[in-house]
Amino acid sequence: MTTHQPLTAIGFDADDTLWQNEYFFRLTEEKFSSLLKDYAESDHITERLLAAERRNLEYYGYGVKGFTLSMIETAIEVTEDKVPASVLHDILRTGREMLRHPIETLPHVRETLEELCGSYRLILVTKGDLFDQERKLAQSGLGELFDAVEIVSEKTQETYERIFHQHAETPHQSMMVGNSLKSDILPAINAGSWGVHVPHDLTWALEHAETPSDSEARFYCIEHLGLLPGLISELP
Amino acid sequence: MTTHQPLTAIGFDADDTLWQNEYFFRLTEEKFSSLLKDYAESDHITERLLAAERRNLEYYGYGVKGFTLSMIETAIEVTEDKVPASVLHDILRTGREMLRHPIETLPHVRETLEELCGSYRLILVTKGDLFDQERKLAQSGLGELFDAVEIVSEKTQETYERIFHQHAETPHQSMMVGNSLKSDILPAINAGSWGVHVPHDLTWALEHAETPSDSEARFYCIEHLGLLPGLISELP
Repeated sequence: MTTHQPLTAIGFDADDTLWQNEYFFRLTEEKFSSLLKDYAESDHITERLLAAERRNLEYYGYGVKGFTLSMIETAIEVTEDKVPASVLHDILRTGREMLRHPIETLPHVRETLEELCGSYRLILVTKGDLFDQERKLAQSGLGELFDAVEIVSEKTQETYERIFHQHAETPHQSMMVGNSLKSDILPAINAGSWGVHVPHDLTWALEHAETPSDSEARFYCIEHLGLLPGLISELP
Repeated sequence: MTTHQPLTAIGFDADDTLWQNEYFFRLTEEKFSSLLKDYAESDHITERLLAAERRNLEYYGYGVKGFTLSMIETAIEVTEDKVPASVLHDILRTGREMLRHPIETLPHVRETLEELCGSYRLILVTKGDLFDQERKLAQSGLGELFDAVEIVSEKTQETYERIFHQHAETPHQSMMVGNSLKSDILPAINAGSWGVHVPHDLTWALEHAETPSDSEARFYCIEHLGLLPGLISELP
């Protein structure tokens, strides 16, 4: 075993790394606020919704179905039990629409994956509703570019250790690429992997985290996914 | 390659094969009917709920969160938009309680898995909410007896082909054990696997299917899981 261990596997986050996601949540939040505009200020509604999502995370995990349940709970709460049935109908319908929204891949995604997929094992690593994530992957048309798909309930250091022990020789020979410092980058670096942050304009409040310091040797940040092959070719 | 290919891997369904599940859905349905007893007959409510579940399956897939959303939709429907907020609160709470119900393993489960786990690769194959199924597996204490866990969005012939190609030498050298003819047995037999039906007193209406005929050489039915090692020892 040499001290220099080349990269063998690259993990990619899906939502807001490969395709738009948070954008649809924001649109839905705006729609939700406007449905309840006679009862409370928009800021107050958004705040109560976020509090419900945070409170319910231990029950529902991530994804659209839990989000829809949190919207219903918040609608009852901010209307002080006076929420009209028509609003509940609209919330349920909006939730179902989110589960059918078209998949819009982000710029440079397909060509970057095509360029890398012969040379490295590519692994999709995503959390959220299993059923919904499978639907989105199928609809993206990107499925055949991945060697493995890991839909997980939480992205922790242990998650990445397990995945990269399975798909890379060791986590040291793996890289995780994603838009969430909290879920994609920090736990992957802690597992021994490289972490490549590709920031997205929109990041869910519950995904915020501190940027690692410049002294973190295995951390990189790139503006878009098209810059990834160049970065990889220059890895120490 | 010989014509006689010994069994190498056994897949187990989880809900109502390893632990009680449908029982909690039935309890919740009863609670749901009684919450709405001023608006409709119990039979009518159950029928509307099942229709909502069936209609929403393509959006929500399987699991408690989708079931809770279908209960809310049905409550609005059967009350003709007059559902009180207190009932909605109760439905949301009941849904969360289902996501916390204690895991009660079925008779003979642990000792059977312990007996088989040295000799065969054991694979848990379950559908439903990823987050909830992981919680139940962790709480069951059975996790370390399985070589692999496959939480899937649907159990089709292709699902079993993929899983058993990965974990058995071929699907012909694998066996699937479960309580649902529709999800566990028929598609596994079609994939080339043995199918061992362990009926449960309670089976969800959407899981009903015809029993395979006696002439189906790879189909068995046993009364409880404790009879599985004996059956395996007598396989042709």
